[in-house]
This record gives sequence, C-alpha cells and structure tokens, in this order.
Amino acid sequence: MDIDNANTTAITRLMEARPILKGVAAAKDVIPGMRDNLFLHAGPPIEWARMSGPLRGAIIGAMLFEGIAASEAEAVSMVERGEVEFDSCHHHGAVGPMAGVTSASMKVYVVENAEHGNKSFSNLNEGYGKVLRYGAYSEEVLKKLHWMNDVLGEALANALANSSGIDMRALIAEALHMGDEGHNRNKAGSLLFLKSLAPLIAKTMKDASAMSEVLQFLGDNALSVLNPVMAACKAMTDAAHGVEGSTIVTTMARNGTDFGIRVSGLDAKQWFTAPAEIPVGLFFSGFSQADANPDIGDSAITETAGIGGFAMATAPAIVTFVGGTPKDAMNATLEMYEITFAESKYFTMPSLDFRGTPTGIDIRKVVELGITPRINTGIAHKNAGVGQVGAGLVRPPLAIFEQALLAYAEKYGL
Amino acid sequence: MDIDNANTTAITRLMEARPILKGVAAAKDVIPGMRDNLFLHAGPPIEWARMSGPLRGAIIGAMLFEGIAASEAEAVSMVERGEVEFDSCHHHGAVGPMAGVTSASMKVYVVENAEHGNKSFSNLNEGYGKVLRYGAYSEEVLKKLHWMNDVLGEALANALANSSGIDMRALIAEALHMGDEGHNRNKAGSLLFLKSLAPLIAKTMKDASAMSEVLQFLGDNALSVLNPVMAACKAMTDAAHGVEGSTIVTTMARNGTDFGIRVSGLDAKQWFTAPAEIPVGLFFSGFSQADANPDIGDSAITETAGIGGFAMATAPAIVTFVGGTPKDAMNATLEMYEITFAESKYFTMPSLDFRGTPTGIDIRKVVELGITPRINTGIAHKNAGVGQVGAGLVRPPLAIFEQALLAYAEKYGL
Repeated sequence: MDIDNANTTAITRLMEARPILKGVAAAKDVIPGMRDNLFLHAGPPIEWARMSGPLRGAIIGAMLFEGIAASEAEAVSMVERGEVEFDSCHHHGAVGPMAGVTSASMKVYVVENAEHGNKSFSNLNEGYGKVLRYGAYSEEVLKKLHWMNDVLGEALANALANSSGIDMRALIAEALHMGDEGHNRNKAGSLLFLKSLAPLIAKTMKDASAMSEVLQFLGDNALSVLNPVMAACKAMTDAAHGVEGSTIVTTMARNGTDFGIRVSGLDAKQWFTAPAEIPVGLFFSGFSQADANPDIGDSAITETAGIGGFAMATAPAIVTFVGGTPKDAMNATLEMYEITFAESKYFTMPSLDFRGTPTGIDIRKVVELGITPRINTGIAHKNAGVGQVGAGLVRPPLAIFEQALLAYAEKYGL
Repeated sequence: MDIDNANTTAITRLMEARPILKGVAAAKDVIPGMRDNLFLHAGPPIEWARMSGPLRGAIIGAMLFEGIAASEAEAVSMVERGEVEFDSCHHHGAVGPMAGVTSASMKVYVVENAEHGNKSFSNLNEGYGKVLRYGAYSEEVLKKLHWMNDVLGEALANALANSSGIDMRALIAEALHMGDEGHNRNKAGSLLFLKSLAPLIAKTMKDASAMSEVLQFLGDNALSVLNPVMAACKAMTDAAHGVEGSTIVTTMARNGTDFGIRVSGLDAKQWFTAPAEIPVGLFFSGFSQADANPDIGDSAITETAGIGGFAMATAPAIVTFVGGTPKDAMNATLEMYEITFAESKYFTMPSLDFRGTPTGIDIRKVVELGITPRINTGIAHKNAGVGQVGAGLVRPPLAIFEQALLAYAEKYGL
C-alpha cells in the first residue's frame, strides 16, 4: 500500500477545503443528532464519573442555562439518574473550546466546506474572565450566555443571512500575516471578523444601543473569531478523514481527563486516548501551576489543521501570554515540520520567508522521532465553577500515537 | 555644551508625548492660521512654479472641491494671478500623506498631546485608487471627497465627541505587535481604529445605510488610521522640537520636488532641502519606474518618530507591497539603530525580543556614518491627475544632513 499517496490525498483534501462561515442558528436546528437532553462536550467521549471539574461545571451551567435544572444539586442528581446524555462534539461535526459544552438551544456558528460539502459547527465565544467553557456557571455567567444567545447570536444570524458568508481560510491566512497563530492569539482575526460583520450588523440591527454593545463585545473580545476558526479547522480536518491507508491525524481533542486522537485511515469512532497532561504556562494573578486542570478542549483542532502551536513562528507576541521567548515560538514551528507531512499552500508565515505552516501530523513520524505535537492552550482551574487561570503550552501523551500506529498496522496487516 | 544631554531631553519629550485623537473638525475651525484661500501642502515650502505634477494636481482638485474654481484652467489661472496662497502643513501643526493638500473646509483629525499640550492635525484618508493625495482630481475623486467630508467626517466627529478620545500611542504600540510598521502597512492599526469607533458610530449615527457604508469604508481601507497615526507622530516630534543644543531631526517631509528636514536645536522655519529622490519599489500593473514622481508626502513623520521604515523588522509581510525580502526588512531596522539616539520605550518589536524601535535620528550620526534614514513610501505618478502607481523604499539626500550639521555648528559656534 502506498501510504504517502494516501496521505497526499488526505492533505490535499485538508488544504483544498474551503470553509465558509454561512450562518448562526440554534444547535438543535442545525447539528445532526442534536436533541433537548443531549449535551455535547470537548474531547473524546467520557462518562460523568470520570469527568474533570471544569467539564462538570460547564455541564451543570448548560443545564441551568437550558432551564432543565434549577440548581447545581438538581442538575447533578438528574445526571446521576441518567436523565441527560453526553456525547463528543466531534461525533456531530462540532467543536468547542475548553469544556466545549453545547446544548440544544445554544446558538452555534455554521461553517460549510464549499469544496467538499461537509458542515461543521461551534458555539459562540464568551470572552475572557468567568465563562462556562472554563467550568464557571454563576448567575453572571448565565446572564451573559443569555445575552449572547438572544442579542449577539440574533445579530450574527441576521448579519450573516444578509451576506454570502465569510471565507474563513482567507481570514486565517490574513491573520497569520498579522501576528496571530489562530489558537491562543486571535487578535487580528477577531478584528478582521468584526470588519466583515460590522457593515452587515449596521444594516440589520434596529436598536442602536444593543448594536453598540454587540460591536463593542465583538471588538473587545480578542477571541471572538476563535470559535469560527475552530469550526473552519474542523471542516478542513473532517474533509481529510476516511482516506484509506492515510496515517494523518484528523482530530486532537481533550475532555479534561483524556487526550484523544483519531486518524484518517482508521474508523471515525476509533479514538486513541490516554490521560491528558497538565499545561505549563503563565498564570493569572492569584493562581499557580497547582490550580491547573489537565489539558481540555477541542481547540487543538487548530494544530491538527496546521495553525496554532504549529504557526507560532508568525506570532512572536504570543509569548507574553503563553510564556517563553520569540525564539522558542520560532523553534516550536520548526520542530513541527519534523512530524508533519506537508507545508500549507494557503497559510504562510512572513517571518519564515512565507513558508507554509507545518500541516498534517503523521503518526509514523511522531512515533519514529518521539516528537509529539505542540499545542497552545488556555488553562482551566481544576475545580468546577472557577474558570480560566492561565495560558500555556502542552503536548499530547506519546502513547496515543503508538496505540494508533499499532491499530493501523493491525488494520492494514503490516 | 552637552549635546547628549540636550538630545536626551528631546527624545524624552518625543517618547513621553501622549497623543490622543480628540476629534474631527473643519480645517478652518481648528488649524491655526487656516483661511479660505490658503492651501496647505506636504513637505517644505515651495512655490507653484517648482511644484511637481501630483502636488499641482492635488491643489487643483482642492480648489475644485472648495468650489473656488470651476475648472482646471480656472484654478491654474487663479494660482498664476496669485489669488491663492500656499504653505507647508508643518508650519500649522499639520501633516498630510503624499501631496498632503488640506483646504479650509476639509475635515481634519485633531490630536492633542496630553503630556505637553501641543495639538496636531491631519486630513482624512481616501483609501487606494484614484485619490487627491496622489494628484488625481476627476469627478469621481471629488465626489468621494465630498462624501468623506459630509458623511464620514460627520460620523467621525460625532463618534469622537461621544468618547474620551483614542490613545494613539497605545494603538500604534499594539499595531506593531500585529505586523504593522505604521507607515505603509497599517492593516492592524486601521482595524484597531475601527474597533474603537464602531460602537461609538452605532450610538451616534441615525441612517442605517450610511452607517453601513461608513463602517465598510473604515474597515476596507487598510490606511484608515494612517492619517491619525501621522498626526500622532507630528504631536510627538513637535514636542521634541526647540530643545537648545539638540541634534535630533524633528521633521522629514517631501513636497514632490524637495526633501526637507528640520532639527530640534535649530529654528522651526529653518528647512534643509535638496532634490527628493525617486523611490524604488513595486509598481501596479501597467506602470513602471519611469512613471514615478520624486518622493512626496509628510508621511516620513512616522520614521521621524521611530516607526515606519524604522520598524520594518516587526512587519515582514510588508515586503509583498514595497519589495525585498523579510530579511531586508529586518536589516532596515537594524541599520537604523546606527543613526538614532535611543530605543523607544513604548514601541517594541516582538521579532527582536521586544526591543524598542530605533528612535530619534541624530544628524551627527547620519553625517559621520553616511547612512541616511530608510523610508517606506507610496509612489505617485509624475503627472497631475493620475494617482498612485506603486509603493517602495526611498532615502533622503545625505546633503541635507550635512547642511543641517553645518548650520548647527555655526549657530552653536562649534
């Protein structure tokens, strides 16, 4: 079997995918298989008993948000009675940062891959501070979520309905020339997003004061575009999945307990998992490494698509947020060329003479070299209800790539 | 005399200046000495007979815009009869990109230096294509100018009147971390500008369709923020002028015929000039080096304040616009440390480990080393009425630094 040939097919599909942000709608109206008592979460599938604090917190918050539980205690006993169901976002074409919890009535971005037709979804970004995705679910967190769903989500839905969509691949490419790496640094991308949306919002929103709040929120939140970027990366990597014989990783995701990957040439339901590492980075005032939860979130879909930690060379200013020096950031990218199959045609880095980002993690190279992918990530507090405590760097456990390679050898009789 | 001491004072004033964009108003209402028949222009003072094509074109266009002439022929004969007056923008605290022509009823940005109290001004940016500042004055150019004055200018004036102003030093500092150098690349800065203005515009504009056009224009024009950035640099460099004994350059400006500089320790009316060089760069389709006018515009105020060509190391993507390689861009900045007196405290470059930009051109070093400042610039067609034909790099003639050093030696009896 010609593995390189299979990988070329997978990578070509990944790179030629053209994710267009088409709209915003309630999850239950657009996400396949979504239903009222289903709660999607980041990472590989996991049962309640093994869930980490921040993931539990986000699920409790989402149940309060949906109004199906009136208190934390009620939410927990409903879960324990089996009245709600859980599934991985990835099984439904969705991705969410950190806990990634997505419930039926939450508004989500709808991205369509204009090249191959597949769709992907992501929830709306809440900004910094106490937020559901880091496991916080106070009154204030829920109030903001309702505003986001009712005012912001409605504004985005109407704005996008009045447009031909936003070309996310072009947006990411431009942001990488403006000091973003697309995962932990999305300052430029979020402003490009605002630039596309503002004239549409002006045309479609009636209430001047609400419009001003929406524009302020989108502009001030340097992560506004993270979720549509993640959905775009999901559309790209999903397009690369299912290529017979390919050793390219199409998913890296963490649920706060386990780190899981999936591989193009293996079954979509076949996850390779091991305990997630604890990220190392810079902590907000009052917190330290001891507060950190193990790695969590679907945002490693960015690295899977060749940006994020893989594109740090183009984002030297990110070190003020994740630690290290600009030289470390450069080296992170250079190291990732060792374990990837190709260089992106569309995502280039001026500081490396416009070289394409390292794209398509090859499980063979990871295992052979013992070099695991580099991921930029936010750091959640390990207890439910607290929220973000820092940002830093993490790698997946090497064992899951070894497991995947064994499964690959078994399937293909090598 | 302790020259270094004088230069430290001048540079401290330059760096500690805090330019705040306070408003937008008609030139005649805010610019000192402005009057109906006065036309300000970029660069050192120059009479009509010696003006280049693009500067003449812009003056004709401004006269048509003001309605004091009905045709090109009438405008020219009014000029020849001495019915209009000209002066350098710099004599009125103003700066304008390229031709820099500013007339009485044109709306201008008003910047106030919160640290030292001086004010500066700049006209509104017209975007790319056929524009007055490159000497074009067709119907279409004038129509856009009227829309800018009546709709955009009014919107900006009302928005800023509802705010405490925009901190331009902070905006520039952030843009330099996002791949801008602040002169020829202002993509990020223009989006940061949009982000500050959009919520204010939403609150103050009534007409939804006009609002949408204004937000679209501000967002699509990657030079939107150039003019307020230039006014900010003018406020900073003006604050550094007039320090007895200082050899720091406080103005570099070109009128399309002459390149002129002024020096802190010498008289504000004392310009040192020589014929401007022709920029070398990349040309738009259909144009070549043979079409290029000599260097023109006040935008070299950015380099005078330590950004633009001096900060190219932080803006590697600019080479797609001005030519050369990212390595050349890095070297341009490194070379400028040789002829500057200090490193900026506020403008830092992640790619150089957050080193401050080279700040404060010292005429002693320029003459001693024979290294002239590097300037990023747009390139105008040499004939009136055509417009921009490319962008590239240019240096001032060494002779003007030698003249300035001689005048300095004479004044201070060295």
